[in-house]
Amino acid sequence: MKLLTFSHQGRTRFGALRGDHDIVALDELGHASLHTALAAGALDELAHAAQARPVTHRLADVQLLPPILAPEKIICVGVNYGKRNEEYQDGSAPPAYPSVFPRFPGSFVGHGQALLRPPESEQLDYEGEIAIVIGKTGRRIAAEDAWQHVAGLTCLNEGTVRDWLRHGKFNVTQGKNFDASGSMGPWLVTADEFDPAAPLTVSTRVNGELRQQDSTDNLMFPFAELIRYISIWTTLKPGDVISTGTPIGAGVRFTPPRFLKPGDVVEVEVSGIGVLSNPVADEAVTPAGASHAE
Amino acid sequence: MKLLTFSHQGRTRFGALRGDHDIVALDELGHASLHTALAAGALDELAHAAQARPVTHRLADVQLLPPILAPEKIICVGVNYGKRNEEYQDGSAPPAYPSVFPRFPGSFVGHGQALLRPPESEQLDYEGEIAIVIGKTGRRIAAEDAWQHVAGLTCLNEGTVRDWLRHGKFNVTQGKNFDASGSMGPWLVTADEFDPAAPLTVSTRVNGELRQQDSTDNLMFPFAELIRYISIWTTLKPGDVISTGTPIGAGVRFTPPRFLKPGDVVEVEVSGIGVLSNPVADEAVTPAGASHAE
Repeated sequence: MKLLTFSHQGRTRFGALRGDHDIVALDELGHASLHTALAAGALDELAHAAQARPVTHRLADVQLLPPILAPEKIICVGVNYGKRNEEYQDGSAPPAYPSVFPRFPGSFVGHGQALLRPPESEQLDYEGEIAIVIGKTGRRIAAEDAWQHVAGLTCLNEGTVRDWLRHGKFNVTQGKNFDASGSMGPWLVTADEFDPAAPLTVSTRVNGELRQQDSTDNLMFPFAELIRYISIWTTLKPGDVISTGTPIGAGVRFTPPRFLKPGDVVEVEVSGIGVLSNPVADEAVTPAGASHAE
Repeated sequence: MKLLTFSHQGRTRFGALRGDHDIVALDELGHASLHTALAAGALDELAHAAQARPVTHRLADVQLLPPILAPEKIICVGVNYGKRNEEYQDGSAPPAYPSVFPRFPGSFVGHGQALLRPPESEQLDYEGEIAIVIGKTGRRIAAEDAWQHVAGLTCLNEGTVRDWLRHGKFNVTQGKNFDASGSMGPWLVTADEFDPAAPLTVSTRVNGELRQQDSTDNLMFPFAELIRYISIWTTLKPGDVISTGTPIGAGVRFTPPRFLKPGDVVEVEVSGIGVLSNPVADEAVTPAGASHAE
């Protein structure tokens, strides 16, 4: 089942995709959001209603939003595909533990919405990733139980403002958290549609040109290990997002670097999920500091 | 005005402190939480009701909780007091920008609740800090306007599990986010009770022994500068917390290190706010991985 959150006529709603073009709205079941439906353990209820109820919208008529609008935690994993550590060319050994850093919800837009290049930087970059959405609360989850805690997967563009990444003595917080610098979607594909033992492929294209492609076979820390490790220190809750790392080939790794420019289109495709596509725009800043796509 | 969130007879409520010992509950005004009251711009309404309404509880009869239970963002600042950069003894120049990293809400308990030392580490440490709670939404806030965006201040123990701090290639996420490793409170003191030009003193005591003490006069990045800098990249919203850094003297800086042990009591005192006090306990892990204080 493909579950999506969308805006239509000024109202934020959620529902399921039927076929390739139609939506069955599901918010009238009494769950305020897809997030609260996950927290209520209502996936079976949603699946039944997605079959039984009539089509309410056409996909082409709505604005998709990130499937989970305000996760309590968005935990991103750095340097996780096998060749990524070598890409740093710093001679360091493969890491013993995952590198993890949080992002805030406001740093993501939905499918089709503009990624904003802020006036403070010309170094907006893409990072195509597969994101896990948690469906069941857990702490110190065993790796063999991890998949039971997964509600589903989505595509994630972990967009980064490169020159703000190393402002701090430690931590990449700033460069990873510019408002509207990343994206998530187009929808959440529920866990039952995946074989946890089968590899997934993630690809990133800019204006149709393939820039990144790798298989989860090459992950240093596979999904189950990430869930095990992260849940040692923090309780994972429904709606929490774990973004599992990006392959080699981000724009900054080219010589010279190939950063995103207004008018570019970035696509992140994951096998079994679909394509998350976003145009790039310059952020227009009003005198009061608010912003919108130019 | 001192605003507090508390639990009484299994119900989570909020209110204002009257005098030193009494509470006037304010949740019956229609705001679900102190967080939503701040988001509604209701501070004047709360102040009026705190005067007009009767005392509902005695402070001694309730369990205090973090004043804001689930901030969207908890942004912590590293290495901000003047002598802290020297404490690293790595010969580095003073930083050009603040070092910032997020914590999740679950990593904090309220005043009087136990800080939990997890079974995975014997290196639980304290960091006494002053935390800003945002009251008004803003992006790219000018330093001279920053104080208008502050709802108030609270004490924060930015408790840290030291040996998990450098697990990652970058980022201190893990060691800063063990559940119940830090604390916040006892209450939020509203901004009108402070002169933004007057320095504040933060002190940390362990079992009555002074370990940390410094003045905000010595901050490399003062409150207004932090709000200006952070709001360049992320929209600050009501309820967001910025913890402004810790003085020298954390347990790890002693030779040998003086980490927290079960039975210790940590107090963080800030002038004009009060004392945040927490006992330390070993976390008891059930077979299912859940936890409670032993």
